[in-house]
Amino acid sequence: MPDSLATTAPGAETIVLVVMDGVGGLPHPDTGSTELESASTPNLDALAAGSSLGMLDPVGPGITPGSGPGHLSLFGYDPVESLVGRGVLSALGVGFELERGDVAARVNLATVGLDGVVSDRRAGRPSDAEGRRIIEAVQSALRPPDGVEVTVLHEKEHRAVLILRGDGLGGELSDGDPQRTGLAPLPVTALDAGSAATAEIVQDLLVQVTDILSGEPVANQFLVRGFAQYTSYPSFEDRYGLKAIAVAKYPMYRGVARLVGMSVEGVPEDAAETVSMLGASYGRYDFYFVHFKDTDTRGHDGDFQGKVAAIEEIDGLIPGITCLDPDVLIVTGDHSTPATYGEHTWHSVPVLIHSRWARPTGDAFGESACRGGDLGTFDGTGLMALALAHARRLQKYGA
Amino acid sequence: MPDSLATTAPGAETIVLVVMDGVGGLPHPDTGSTELESASTPNLDALAAGSSLGMLDPVGPGITPGSGPGHLSLFGYDPVESLVGRGVLSALGVGFELERGDVAARVNLATVGLDGVVSDRRAGRPSDAEGRRIIEAVQSALRPPDGVEVTVLHEKEHRAVLILRGDGLGGELSDGDPQRTGLAPLPVTALDAGSAATAEIVQDLLVQVTDILSGEPVANQFLVRGFAQYTSYPSFEDRYGLKAIAVAKYPMYRGVARLVGMSVEGVPEDAAETVSMLGASYGRYDFYFVHFKDTDTRGHDGDFQGKVAAIEEIDGLIPGITCLDPDVLIVTGDHSTPATYGEHTWHSVPVLIHSRWARPTGDAFGESACRGGDLGTFDGTGLMALALAHARRLQKYGA
Repeated sequence: MPDSLATTAPGAETIVLVVMDGVGGLPHPDTGSTELESASTPNLDALAAGSSLGMLDPVGPGITPGSGPGHLSLFGYDPVESLVGRGVLSALGVGFELERGDVAARVNLATVGLDGVVSDRRAGRPSDAEGRRIIEAVQSALRPPDGVEVTVLHEKEHRAVLILRGDGLGGELSDGDPQRTGLAPLPVTALDAGSAATAEIVQDLLVQVTDILSGEPVANQFLVRGFAQYTSYPSFEDRYGLKAIAVAKYPMYRGVARLVGMSVEGVPEDAAETVSMLGASYGRYDFYFVHFKDTDTRGHDGDFQGKVAAIEEIDGLIPGITCLDPDVLIVTGDHSTPATYGEHTWHSVPVLIHSRWARPTGDAFGESACRGGDLGTFDGTGLMALALAHARRLQKYGA
Repeated sequence: MPDSLATTAPGAETIVLVVMDGVGGLPHPDTGSTELESASTPNLDALAAGSSLGMLDPVGPGITPGSGPGHLSLFGYDPVESLVGRGVLSALGVGFELERGDVAARVNLATVGLDGVVSDRRAGRPSDAEGRRIIEAVQSALRPPDGVEVTVLHEKEHRAVLILRGDGLGGELSDGDPQRTGLAPLPVTALDAGSAATAEIVQDLLVQVTDILSGEPVANQFLVRGFAQYTSYPSFEDRYGLKAIAVAKYPMYRGVARLVGMSVEGVPEDAAETVSMLGASYGRYDFYFVHFKDTDTRGHDGDFQGKVAAIEEIDGLIPGITCLDPDVLIVTGDHSTPATYGEHTWHSVPVLIHSRWARPTGDAFGESACRGGDLGTFDGTGLMALALAHARRLQKYGA
C-alpha cells in the first residue's frame, strides 16, 4: 500500500475482522467437499451473498504460514520482513511489557526420563493451576547471571515463556525442543556471533531448571523454542489511523495483536464469550480483531467432523456480530489446516468482505465459492487496504 | 516485465488500447447487475467471444487510483514509483512543452465571496471562451519574480494550469484548493525545504491574481492544487519499441499519454470523432490509445442509466475500430467509478484482449464474465506485456 493514504477523516467507519484459525481445508475423500463446504453455515452463507469473495495467500504460493506470519499478513505487515519469533508473541500474549532488546522463548514443561530422552513434550498436560505452581517455583529459585533479568511466566497448561533482559543480548538461538519424543533435548546454540553469550546464559539457566525440577515426578524439564529479540513495530494507529482491539482466548494471538499496538481488555473463556466481549467493547474502537481457535485445533487433530462442528459453532455466533452492524465485516483464516493433512498447509484461504460496496458473486462461504469471487486470489497483505477501502478510510491515490 | 524483451522485429503487429474511463461498476440494487452488465453491448460481447478476459487491479488490492496512476499502470509504468502530480499532467495535456525542473499546478477559476470563503469552486463553469479570456488577462498582467518564467494556460471551462520555470524550484507544495465550498482558500506551503522559495513565489503570484481579478463578478480567484515537478519518463518507443498515438478529448489524458512519449495529432469533440480520428491516423503508428470519458463522468454523477447509455454509445462505435482490423484490440478501464458510489473506487476492472492468440471463455463483456476469464485478476502493470505478447512483439525470456 502506498504510504499515507489512510485517513480517519470521512465517516470513521468500523471494521470487524473475524479470523477462524486454520479454516481453509481440503476435500473429504468421500464427498469432495472441504470442511467449510461440508458445514451447515446459514449465517456465513447469508453474509457471503452481500460480500466480495476471494482467496488469500497469507505469505505466498506454496508457503505454509505459522500463526505469527499468518496474522501479520492479515494485519497488512509483510510477513517475511516482519518475521517475529514465537517467544516474543508468547511474552506479549501473556501481557508482559517487552522492551526493545529483550529476548524471549516459548517454553514447554516436559517429561524427560532417566535415559535422558523426552517421553512427553507436554508433561501430561498439567492443569493451569499445576502448571502455574511449577513455573512459579522455577522463577523463585532461579539465580540469574549478573546484569540479566530473567522472567519465567506461566501461559496455559504446559506452556510458559522465558524472557531475558539486559545489555548485549542476542536472539539468534537454536531450539532446545527436539519436537519429538524419544530424542534428548537439544543444546541451545548461538546462530550468530552476537548471540554467543546469550546461548551460554540460557544453557546455564536450563541446567538450573533441571536441578530445580528434579523432585517433580512429571514436569521435570523445560523445552525451549522460538527464541526472538523484540523490536517495536509501527502500530495500527500509526499506519492506518485505527484504534484497534483484539478479542482472543489464546495468548499467542493476543501477542501478535499487541505487537501491532492493539488493545486487549480481557480474555474470553470460549467462542461464545469471545463474541460477547466483542459486543462489550463495541463502539469504543475502529477495528476489532476477533479470533476463534477451534477450527485449527480440530484440523491438527485430523478430526474432519470436529472441524465441521467448530465451523458450525462459529456460524451460530455470527448473528451476535452482524447485529452490531459493523460497516465492514471480514471473515477469513490465517492459513489452512486441512483435517486430512493434520497440520498447517500452504493452501490459499477463503475470505469474505461484507460491506455496502461489495461485488457479490454467490451465496455460499467456502473454497469453491470464494475462488469464483470478485477478489481473485490475492496476497494476504492486501487485505487491510481492502478493509480500509470498504470503510472509506483510504484516500484516492494520485490525481 | 524483464528488460529488453520488446522487439519490433516480427510482424510489426498493431495494438489498439480502448480505455472506457471508470468503466468498472457495482451491482444495481434492484437488478444485481453492474452498469456493463446492464448495458446492451452486442459489439463488445462479440469481441469478448474471441478474447482473453480478466480483471485488473490498476494499483493494488484496495487502492483507489486517480486517473494519472490508473493510466500509468495500463501503460506498464509502476504507478507508485512513477507517481506524477496533476499539474504536470494538465500542462502536458494542453500541449505545453515541459522541461525537466518545471513546476506545474492545476488551477480552478473560482468564486470567493466578501467573507473570504469559496462559494463556487468552478466559478459558475464559464464557457471555454470566457475562461480563456480571463486566463489570458491574468497572464498578461502577472509580473513574475526575477529569474522565473510564469505561464498560465487555459485548459477547458474553469480549468487552467500554472507553470513555473527557473532554477532551484521545488514541487513539494500543499494545495490551495480547500476542495469544498464554505472554506477559505488555503495558503500554499512548502512540504520540503527545497520548495520553500517556490511556496513564497506562488503565494505572491496568488496575491497578484486576486488583485488582477478583483473586477470580475464571478471568476475572482485561483484555486491551485496538484503541484508537481516534471521529470522525463522513459518513452513507449524506448521501452517497447512502439510508435504510439493518443486520441483523447480531455487534456489530462493527452497529458499522461504525452508523459510517456505518445504523439497527439488533434483533439476530438466527442466519442464518434474519437473513433474517426483513430481511423485517420491508422497505419502510421504501432500503438493507439483511445480514451472515452463519459463512462467516468456519469459514474461521478451517480447516474447509473447515464453510465449504461455511455457504455452503449461506445459499444456502437466498436465496429468503427474492429473494421481497422488491429492485430490486438484491448478494451478496459483505468479504474472503477460505480454509479452507486459516485466516485473512483478500488474495485478491479474488466479487461478483454482480442487477438488470434486469445483463450476465450465466454461471449459477454462485464464483471461476471471477466472474473471467470482466462487472465484471472492481475496487476494492471502486466497489461502491456500481455499486449506485446499478443502482438508477438516480446521475445522469449531466457534460453
